Amino acid sequence: MVNLVHGGDIYSVKEKGMEDILDFSANINPKGLPEKVKKAIIDGLDSCVHYPDPLCRRLIAAISEFEGVDKECILCGNGAADIVFRLALALKPKKALVLAPTFAEYETALNTVDCHTKHYELSAEQDFALNEDYLNALDSSYDVVFLCNPNNPTGQLMTKELLEKILLKCTEHHIMMVLDECFIEFVEAYEKYTMKSHVESCENLFILKAFTKSYAMPGLRLGYGLSGNKELLKKITDMGQPWSVSVPAQLAGVQALKETEYLEESMREIREEKTYLVSELDKLGIKFYNPSANYIFLKIENNGRYDPSDFKEKLLEKGIIIRDCSNYVGLEKGYYRIAVKSHRANERLINVLKSI
Amino acid sequence: MVNLVHGGDIYSVKEKGMEDILDFSANINPKGLPEKVKKAIIDGLDSCVHYPDPLCRRLIAAISEFEGVDKECILCGNGAADIVFRLALALKPKKALVLAPTFAEYETALNTVDCHTKHYELSAEQDFALNEDYLNALDSSYDVVFLCNPNNPTGQLMTKELLEKILLKCTEHHIMMVLDECFIEFVEAYEKYTMKSHVESCENLFILKAFTKSYAMPGLRLGYGLSGNKELLKKITDMGQPWSVSVPAQLAGVQALKETEYLEESMREIREEKTYLVSELDKLGIKFYNPSANYIFLKIENNGRYDPSDFKEKLLEKGIIIRDCSNYVGLEKGYYRIAVKSHRANERLINVLKSI
Repeated sequence: MVNLVHGGDIYSVKEKGMEDILDFSANINPKGLPEKVKKAIIDGLDSCVHYPDPLCRRLIAAISEFEGVDKECILCGNGAADIVFRLALALKPKKALVLAPTFAEYETALNTVDCHTKHYELSAEQDFALNEDYLNALDSSYDVVFLCNPNNPTGQLMTKELLEKILLKCTEHHIMMVLDECFIEFVEAYEKYTMKSHVESCENLFILKAFTKSYAMPGLRLGYGLSGNKELLKKITDMGQPWSVSVPAQLAGVQALKETEYLEESMREIREEKTYLVSELDKLGIKFYNPSANYIFLKIENNGRYDPSDFKEKLLEKGIIIRDCSNYVGLEKGYYRIAVKSHRANERLINVLKSI
Repeated sequence: MVNLVHGGDIYSVKEKGMEDILDFSANINPKGLPEKVKKAIIDGLDSCVHYPDPLCRRLIAAISEFEGVDKECILCGNGAADIVFRLALALKPKKALVLAPTFAEYETALNTVDCHTKHYELSAEQDFALNEDYLNALDSSYDVVFLCNPNNPTGQLMTKELLEKILLKCTEHHIMMVLDECFIEFVEAYEKYTMKSHVESCENLFILKAFTKSYAMPGLRLGYGLSGNKELLKKITDMGQPWSVSVPAQLAGVQALKETEYLEESMREIREEKTYLVSELDKLGIKFYNPSANYIFLKIENNGRYDPSDFKEKLLEKGIIIRDCSNYVGLEKGYYRIAVKSHRANERLINVLKSI
């Protein structure tokens, strides 16, 4: 049995007979799948009688144009998570440093190759922000470090200045720096934060991206990696089957990257809704951490009007799923994550919060 | 760059500007994707805004009913090839035995965990058939063996009697027996050949199956494994991301298994077409090996009317792709594989063969 520790597991809830549920546990663009993306999949269904293009030629050309990164530096996968696992297998690192808390799949993937994973604990007192102290933790004993910007589940953003210092130190110590930017497009003026300009010139930087969140298509499974290390890209490719990216995912990806209006509109909407949500949470006395992406990290305190021991269950009774973050390394009971959804959904959440 | 050594790579050909091509290099059901499978995908597109069910609950229930195998013994993957790679990672075998020739991905997957892979060479004199001599090759130095029934690319079938003897010997020597039955549904009276009745009672048997070939959906990526070894299934699950099977693939699979009429009709059609093709190949003096599935293994000899050195290229000039099998371990130039396609396509192939 898979351990269902992640957000987005609407199936277990539906199995219990609840149909009318609102899923705040997965951080997906509330605008839904763009219409033209759906059309591209439907129009291309007949081509599913062929194997997918193992080289994802059209998709990589589209990503290259979108990201302004050379085609040779791009690799696609069955969701970003697929690339994380292949990357672990390709690197076979002996020792790794991951943040705590952060997305759990980095460590799960490292475990498949028996890597010794150390945790760099982010402190609640500093709002789980990463600062220059991190540089002191880096030494040549590490083969790889995983960073996530903005970090998941905390939503904390790292400055490009800090990331560049980390990259420099990683380079000096021959450490591969894996930087997950899956949520970066939700950050205001994200161009100031992304490290993609360093990809082509740098052999020890690997950036992870996904279509999952920005284009509301987690069910299609499509992610990609950016790296100037061609030997590594070749190795990652060899670590799995040639046909990992399905025909519908490739078609959807090509079309999605043309949806600039959809993306701009949804980013604007999400920013507005984030403002609405934090102001309402504030009024309710719920502690939240400054959100930079499309999700908000909460702390339910024992001394407040809510009870951290059954907060999630109380919401579930009212048809709302949120992400209990207590199973993240470095967190304890009381931390939760909610996605920023449509105004109607957000209102329902706030009303439910008011009622309990 | 991926080494494009497999069949089904229509993209490289199309890149060269050829659009009107017939792909005989991939062994896909010529009937195409069942209409109701397409409908199920279209109807379910909106649910792609959710992550797929990591436990593939509805799909596994459908497979369990179709195969008559307990749900607890079933695991789904992003195509059977995905499962092959995860299986290698879960087993981390030191030494493996694979047939030569056979499907190349077994060895590629074993290479990812630095397994020493020995080849069991099938002899051309014996039409590449496996016989009881194989039993003598098995000893406790092996952790895993890979078999494929019918074998790909040769189309040779192993009897259940032989497979049961192999399973017994594997059990005695604590060897995991991986048996690829991806093409077995194309075999006449395949119930007499499948080993699935042993799955539930046997800890060291792992059967691979796919939707790819039977339901003409290689582009959707869906395969599964059957094994009574629950510890192994759990390990395989842990060796990759939780969401490897996309929403469209899960929906397609559930519907496909209801398509009994489609399956029966296509099997009848393929048998008829196989009869047509072998009789025409015979007239043309082309040597073929008795085909048991939906593909025919050919030997183009130097002394015949065709030239093995440019046989594939000659056909490609006429818009037909076939599978050059010379890159299979254990084969040399002159071996080719063609799929059994629709009557129109098969006629075009025969006419082209007559013309060159």
